[in-house]
Amino acid sequence: MLGPSTVADVSERELVARIQRQLPPTPPWVLVGIGDDAAIVEPERNRAEVFTVDAVVEGVHFDRAFVPPDAIGHRALAVNLSDLAAMGAAPRLALLSMALPSTLPLADFDGVVSGFTSLAAAHRLQVIGGNLTRSPGPLVIDVTLVGTLKRRQALTRGGARPGDDVYVSGTIGAAAAGLALLRKVVGPSSVVDLGPQSTDGLRLRLMTEDSGLTTDDWRLMTAYLTPVPRIRLGLLLGRNRAASACVDLSDGLADGVRRIAEASGVGVTVDASLLPIDPAARAFFEAQHVDPVEASLEVDDYELLVTVRPRARGRLAAAIRHGGAPLTRIGRCTEDRAITIRHSGTEATAAALPTGYTHFRPFDKLRVVPSDVEGR
Amino acid sequence: MLGPSTVADVSERELVARIQRQLPPTPPWVLVGIGDDAAIVEPERNRAEVFTVDAVVEGVHFDRAFVPPDAIGHRALAVNLSDLAAMGAAPRLALLSMALPSTLPLADFDGVVSGFTSLAAAHRLQVIGGNLTRSPGPLVIDVTLVGTLKRRQALTRGGARPGDDVYVSGTIGAAAAGLALLRKVVGPSSVVDLGPQSTDGLRLRLMTEDSGLTTDDWRLMTAYLTPVPRIRLGLLLGRNRAASACVDLSDGLADGVRRIAEASGVGVTVDASLLPIDPAARAFFEAQHVDPVEASLEVDDYELLVTVRPRARGRLAAAIRHGGAPLTRIGRCTEDRAITIRHSGTEATAAALPTGYTHFRPFDKLRVVPSDVEGR
Repeated sequence: MLGPSTVADVSERELVARIQRQLPPTPPWVLVGIGDDAAIVEPERNRAEVFTVDAVVEGVHFDRAFVPPDAIGHRALAVNLSDLAAMGAAPRLALLSMALPSTLPLADFDGVVSGFTSLAAAHRLQVIGGNLTRSPGPLVIDVTLVGTLKRRQALTRGGARPGDDVYVSGTIGAAAAGLALLRKVVGPSSVVDLGPQSTDGLRLRLMTEDSGLTTDDWRLMTAYLTPVPRIRLGLLLGRNRAASACVDLSDGLADGVRRIAEASGVGVTVDASLLPIDPAARAFFEAQHVDPVEASLEVDDYELLVTVRPRARGRLAAAIRHGGAPLTRIGRCTEDRAITIRHSGTEATAAALPTGYTHFRPFDKLRVVPSDVEGR
Repeated sequence: MLGPSTVADVSERELVARIQRQLPPTPPWVLVGIGDDAAIVEPERNRAEVFTVDAVVEGVHFDRAFVPPDAIGHRALAVNLSDLAAMGAAPRLALLSMALPSTLPLADFDGVVSGFTSLAAAHRLQVIGGNLTRSPGPLVIDVTLVGTLKRRQALTRGGARPGDDVYVSGTIGAAAAGLALLRKVVGPSSVVDLGPQSTDGLRLRLMTEDSGLTTDDWRLMTAYLTPVPRIRLGLLLGRNRAASACVDLSDGLADGVRRIAEASGVGVTVDASLLPIDPAARAFFEAQHVDPVEASLEVDDYELLVTVRPRARGRLAAAIRHGGAPLTRIGRCTEDRAITIRHSGTEATAAALPTGYTHFRPFDKLRVVPSDVEGR
């Protein structure tokens, strides 16, 4: 006899129990945890609280055809952790709300939860509650996080001034290349086998199959599947007051630049030749005859974009030294409120006022034009 | 020229601005509000924090064919406020996360937001942030609330003891009857006109049309469309320590009884003849040849189910006097851990251990059987 195979075969109670089995013991500051109408917690003393909520929706933010369940859970949490990182907050607690298609295999449900709880544990983030409901459409994972910080250590978007340098952490472009690779390599085969069952399983399959995939290819895919939010860097930057403004790149670097420019009332000039584009990603895009800069600007990386007063460079170096992450200077804030990306002899200018990434309307693309036609 | 007509015609930024226009000014304890990577708030001193999250999903929890947009927003918040009420918590802040179908009319978006923000304002609940994304399927509204309470005033599910009396607030059954009425009266017509545009508009249409609807019918519909969470009652019960256990009826009375019984390790005997079924709802069900008790047991009302030690009756009376709400004694907690509903000479017994309401599997119905065949 077969056991239950989809989430529709078991009760909500059983699904909650399956989540609880993956959670560490409840710490003493959780006075009432999962299982009552609501959770009760003791706030941390002398800290302000940071709240963020973000949803990932099947068909909008991920595709089950080529994203394994554990990566879906990982990403759902990473998106939110990245928002805490951008504020300089330490993660504290999470609420996990999921709308589940009836056809979702129980093994996939477990996989999503495992990806989520593993990343939570790595950041000492306590899952204190949530909600499960049925979805007549896509899988939806809505995550609410609470972090804490000392009030004066908060990083916001609004503190940049003309003359501040603009830095980005790590590298960009790897996730965009990884996503393109996944679509190409895994997407089609999944029509038969209903998608990969785990990130590890996918790796094994791709590496043992005669797929011609290199370890660099897999590294790019991993950058997309299981991004690492810059929690430690955010904490260091907040503590030593190195950053005047900070934002994460969850909607891409171009969007991050716009957000800081708008909130701070400054312009930003980015020199595309300075962008720390992942070398393997650059090679991938060039092989596809795609401009690596354009490909890297609009896709979500979970890096931080940071502005730094010239006199705070020393503190920035200290944050990097203490293991936050590498940071690369890519441009400068200007008095003139234009947003300009200098790119191999031409300049790309944000068409109108920055609009930000939108899931609703095609993004107002940066237009690349020779600087003498429509400069600045 | 026509203006934008659906949410797909405007940017995420514009949608956020439309929400902000409906919000009151930010109080000083919100250090960073809507518009950064996350919100920062100062916790309330000497209070524990209560967290709840609940989603409403189109096609599962509501049907746009007969639920006006403002009622959808109202219900999405009411469900969550009811959880705070059941804990005895005072509402403090909210995060609103929505997944929007591209075809959602902008006017409906505004309506949903207005239903949400109106109820929030009535409870001095501050909306400090949220998330908007596209949905390739249903409209999903995910709400996270934070309330506060004094640690020793928390109401939980686990404090009932054998001998405690069981009470329910207000009346039950009205929402179930109202939903049935809405389906019958409004459902079909909406195929043409895409659903009612507002609760007020619906009322006017129904009352002026030759629909034969009475004001009592409309009152039942309102009980479903815009339920009133028992925040004040929860606060009073928490403060004067009248309740030994408390749960809300968001999954129906039968489920509430099970939850308290299980968490407290007691049995519960409910006398169906004592249930405060709304008289108009009773009349409606009887006209449909439906047992009013069965119809009222499984549908969500936003009342509180409360257990009370016999010696705390005075404090309960005080809570009722101070304007909480009427409370009706409907049964008693027992040593024997069975859950029994005495109903006109027969007894309904929960088949196995209480399973709780589930959106995934058909509910284990209470079976009504003569007590000598399969009693208790």
